[in-house]
Amino acid sequence: SSVSTPIRATLFPGDGIGPEISESVKQIFKAADVPIEWEEHYVGTEIDPRTQSFLTWESLESVRRNGVGLKGPMATPIGKGHRSLNLTLRKELNLYANVRPCYSLPGYKTRYDDVNLITIRENTEGEYSGLEHQVVRGVVESLKIITRQASLRVAEYAFHYAKAHGRQRVSAIHKANIMQKTDGLFLKCCREVAEKYPEITYEEVVIDNCCMMLVKNPALFDVLVMPNLYGDIISDLCAGLVGGLGLTPSCNIGKGGIALAEAVHGSAPDIAGKNLANPTALLLSGVTMLRHLDLHDKANQIQNAILNTIAEGKYRTADLGGTSKTSEFTNAIIDHL
Amino acid sequence: SSVSTPIRATLFPGDGIGPEISESVKQIFKAADVPIEWEEHYVGTEIDPRTQSFLTWESLESVRRNGVGLKGPMATPIGKGHRSLNLTLRKELNLYANVRPCYSLPGYKTRYDDVNLITIRENTEGEYSGLEHQVVRGVVESLKIITRQASLRVAEYAFHYAKAHGRQRVSAIHKANIMQKTDGLFLKCCREVAEKYPEITYEEVVIDNCCMMLVKNPALFDVLVMPNLYGDIISDLCAGLVGGLGLTPSCNIGKGGIALAEAVHGSAPDIAGKNLANPTALLLSGVTMLRHLDLHDKANQIQNAILNTIAEGKYRTADLGGTSKTSEFTNAIIDHL
Ligand SMILES: CC(C)[C@H](C(=O)O)[C@@H](O)C(=O)O
Ligand SMILES: CC(C)[C@H](C(=O)O)[C@@H](O)C(=O)O
Repeated sequence: SSVSTPIRATLFPGDGIGPEISESVKQIFKAADVPIEWEEHYVGTEIDPRTQSFLTWESLESVRRNGVGLKGPMATPIGKGHRSLNLTLRKELNLYANVRPCYSLPGYKTRYDDVNLITIRENTEGEYSGLEHQVVRGVVESLKIITRQASLRVAEYAFHYAKAHGRQRVSAIHKANIMQKTDGLFLKCCREVAEKYPEITYEEVVIDNCCMMLVKNPALFDVLVMPNLYGDIISDLCAGLVGGLGLTPSCNIGKGGIALAEAVHGSAPDIAGKNLANPTALLLSGVTMLRHLDLHDKANQIQNAILNTIAEGKYRTADLGGTSKTSEFTNAIIDHL
Repeated sequence: SSVSTPIRATLFPGDGIGPEISESVKQIFKAADVPIEWEEHYVGTEIDPRTQSFLTWESLESVRRNGVGLKGPMATPIGKGHRSLNLTLRKELNLYANVRPCYSLPGYKTRYDDVNLITIRENTEGEYSGLEHQVVRGVVESLKIITRQASLRVAEYAFHYAKAHGRQRVSAIHKANIMQKTDGLFLKCCREVAEKYPEITYEEVVIDNCCMMLVKNPALFDVLVMPNLYGDIISDLCAGLVGGLGLTPSCNIGKGGIALAEAVHGSAPDIAGKNLANPTALLLSGVTMLRHLDLHDKANQIQNAILNTIAEGKYRTADLGGTSKTSEFTNAIIDHL
């Protein structure tokens, strides 16, 4: 075990089941001697004028300072005059790429056998511009914005990721047959980047066709890169192929090398505080954070312990058809370390 | 056999495999004594200034006059200065609702057993507005337009359809958590219509979650209604669940009760003219046209013959893993009539 100074990482336990599943991550990381010291930040109870949301300025500063963080589910409080928590994080921290690995879990049966996909989603613009208005009564419009800068940046990230992870193919997903200018610009940027990676096969697939191919044969794809909303849709579809958002990790990559890993599922208020939640998505997200920090030994150790526990099938939470408590599942993973 | 005057219907055989699969429809309809007289129209070779596309004005007039039509695949010619053929039809004929039934074919195995879904897509506006421009160099925008009129109209159609077909539930698919104004207006219209149909369960599902639920358990849904692009995506996803666009029918409903049934798959130029194409999607689309004309006996007779031929498995085209020619498959269906 190393005696080097620990790495500081921000932890947003979040709402609902967030604190319980965060506890599971902390226990397992500790048991595996991961050299991380968590800086915990909760969602505030008032709007912070500096962020225009319930996220405190200090919590954002913490991620900026540490460069890495892990985030549980956050329920955006209802009401006007403030920004969504998720969108605030993406915008304020310039989290331009959202990476969602999606693979079949050995021993956990779904309709699909060996899914192994990476969706990389542009995370800052497109249909999420927030620019909407009423033109006349009964006619509203929203603007989808695509920029060369953000498209190049996410395309660069996708090809870089593919190369670094020994992946063969990058598919750009689009609807440029209809949105020729916006999605057309996105594709143009992908093509430019693709030229710098001759060893990676590049292809373009229309989103409707992509969804059909994914449900018929997900093995047709490898790394997928796409504008914001398509990424939102396709990453959930892919998660569904292997069991849902409770099982799939996610990591947001931001300017200056920031990595904010995140469980994408909801805060499940109905089961909150009952020791019933499945911590897998947050745990696997934590693992992607470890990889970002080049702590691959720890990442492998923890990932294997999680996958082996699920594969063994003795300890599974209710969402996976089992009867284990969160704490029992957590202890089983620790035993597998 | 009746001696009443035949019903005139427009037929667009379309490009590529279009003529072959149209021939199959004509033969089967004739063998079943369907009282239809086809008025055939091909895509023109020059841009018709009255339609701004390769579709002739006469062909549109034919659909308007007859009120019903059947359309094979059309490949939009490449080049500038003209409109897409599919979009021209939708706009010129005001085809406001696109109905795509999607059900498992007995005997044709996919990963999903008893899919039975209807997607109803708003077909005239939304992300398909065609309004796009460059704001400054490297920044482009496209406008999504949602109107109260088109949203109410498609919602009315969806609930009307659900009631007429004994369906229990209508799910409105949206992303109103992000596009609060546009998708928000769409939902508001659906809610208004839902109130008039207390016997039908109404729910709202966010599109990303909808895709995840569909691939996990399509039985969670019944009738789905949504804005244009979501309909494009989800109808292809649903088609994928039961085998793809080669097997699923589609019907466009327009102002004044026009019905233009259509095979949504491509024109497959690689196998065109080789007697290899699968006519199922066009045939089943023809069946939806018969239902629109209240020719339910003929519709049932033909639909059963198609499904029984596929279920029997002796005659299947290559796309379904068989070795039959289009003509052999067609004759087998005729034998099953
Ligand atoms: C909660 C919602 C705003 C968010 C999104 O649409 O991006 C979620 O679906 C996600 O994928 O992180
Ligand atoms: C060919 C294309 C323009 C069309 C669409 O996007 O609507 C197709 O995908 C469809 O679903 O009919």
